Amino acid sequence: MRKHITGFSNPTVKYLRSLRDKKHRKRAGQFLVEGLRLLEDARVSGRVPQTLVMAEGREHPLLAPLEAAVIAAGGEVIATTPDILSKITGKENAQSVAGVFDEWDTSLARLDRKAAPIWLVAQALRDPGNLGTMLRTCDAVGAGGLILIDDCADPFSAEAVRASMGAVFTVGLAQARWEEFLPWLRGGEGQLVAASLRDAVPYRGADYRAPCFILVGNESQGLPEDYEMACDLRVTMPMRGRADSLNAAVAGAVLAYEVLAGIEGQS
Amino acid sequence: MRKHITGFSNPTVKYLRSLRDKKHRKRAGQFLVEGLRLLEDARVSGRVPQTLVMAEGREHPLLAPLEAAVIAAGGEVIATTPDILSKITGKENAQSVAGVFDEWDTSLARLDRKAAPIWLVAQALRDPGNLGTMLRTCDAVGAGGLILIDDCADPFSAEAVRASMGAVFTVGLAQARWEEFLPWLRGGEGQLVAASLRDAVPYRGADYRAPCFILVGNESQGLPEDYEMACDLRVTMPMRGRADSLNAAVAGAVLAYEVLAGIEGQS
Repeated sequence: MRKHITGFSNPTVKYLRSLRDKKHRKRAGQFLVEGLRLLEDARVSGRVPQTLVMAEGREHPLLAPLEAAVIAAGGEVIATTPDILSKITGKENAQSVAGVFDEWDTSLARLDRKAAPIWLVAQALRDPGNLGTMLRTCDAVGAGGLILIDDCADPFSAEAVRASMGAVFTVGLAQARWEEFLPWLRGGEGQLVAASLRDAVPYRGADYRAPCFILVGNESQGLPEDYEMACDLRVTMPMRGRADSLNAAVAGAVLAYEVLAGIEGQS
Repeated sequence: MRKHITGFSNPTVKYLRSLRDKKHRKRAGQFLVEGLRLLEDARVSGRVPQTLVMAEGREHPLLAPLEAAVIAAGGEVIATTPDILSKITGKENAQSVAGVFDEWDTSLARLDRKAAPIWLVAQALRDPGNLGTMLRTCDAVGAGGLILIDDCADPFSAEAVRASMGAVFTVGLAQARWEEFLPWLRGGEGQLVAASLRDAVPYRGADYRAPCFILVGNESQGLPEDYEMACDLRVTMPMRGRADSLNAAVAGAVLAYEVLAGIEGQS
């Protein structure tokens, strides 16, 4: 059963719109995902939206299984006009569909560190595009997921979800303060590695050990010195230019591919 | 001599604002750069704005050498209010300063391929953040610069310039159609390499040769097949996840660091 909404001032429309704002997302514990491809990625990964919002007249063959999955899970399907969907998503050329998901538990305790040889750890990462890109890299290198330390961008923002290309639904995700993360890490196996200029060895061929946690710092400040000094291994990457830094998501990916090669070489 | 502007409707204010729009940038052949740090990077690299716009009451010690350089080069210095500068840049919290630069010649003929062992080549790259990130990566790996093929984002947009962290001023930049690029490339030394799934070898330890041109495709389509087949070397990167792709700027950087290691190992 589809519910039809035709009025811009409908309270559901207002609620869905409000999810573009972080404050409202956190209060509601829900987030909005636009586009059939992302919703399909979510469905295949076992995550079905609570609410599906479809623009009538723009229906795609893949919408039918999605709609069925939402109804089977007890969710709600809303049919509306393309204009109202545009208003909800804030995009002039709206996708044909959007879904509302419950945010899930992102506590460290939910991660199984032995599930993967590599984990990415980002500290105070401010840019949602970088955050999503790191989730996508996690998928590509077979990492367990991304651990967000201290105050990071919201992984459930539209920009982060989009940049993740759906990996937000498929790889692990945790959020913690450094003061929680470090005892959690030291409570089990795990090598903490950072790119650093302090007392570091070349990143290429360094002695990486699984599970390897690759720590990347804030876009403009880098890592605090005490965070770097808490690492088991500090590595340097060649910097041949005028600046001595890389984009945070790029640095994480170059390291992750090097760690992957190192760990697989051991086995 | 500073010129003072205090009115929002001043034609110069309107002109400067218009440079946020690509169409106006292309017509004027000029672009606007915000922030002292980027302007300092430009100055140190020998690029001085035609016009410098400063918000009075927010002056920084580093502004004096910048202002002197602009005047010495025959440029204009405009002092205005913080509100007007915000209006020009479209940022609520405007930087204290912005500069207008002439766009420069980005024809292939200006590049000296022997000046560097690595070049990045992006085809139909749509995201200005990715474009800027690739310029920044060029700086880090000591690449000669970035060659933009077919219809790419504007390297002189505020977002690309910002993501480049000033590398737009320091590394080479060219724009060309594929039909121009390929004959230019084949007119001299140069190995063209792409990440590919077709008839490819592992990217790790592949036979990279300087000058090595690393070709990265469009964010959603990848490279056209005939572009891939025109490459001298096709390499695959491990893809351990559900998706079989990386962010374009990330893929370019992982390859660039591998090429750097390969080329330096030869020498």
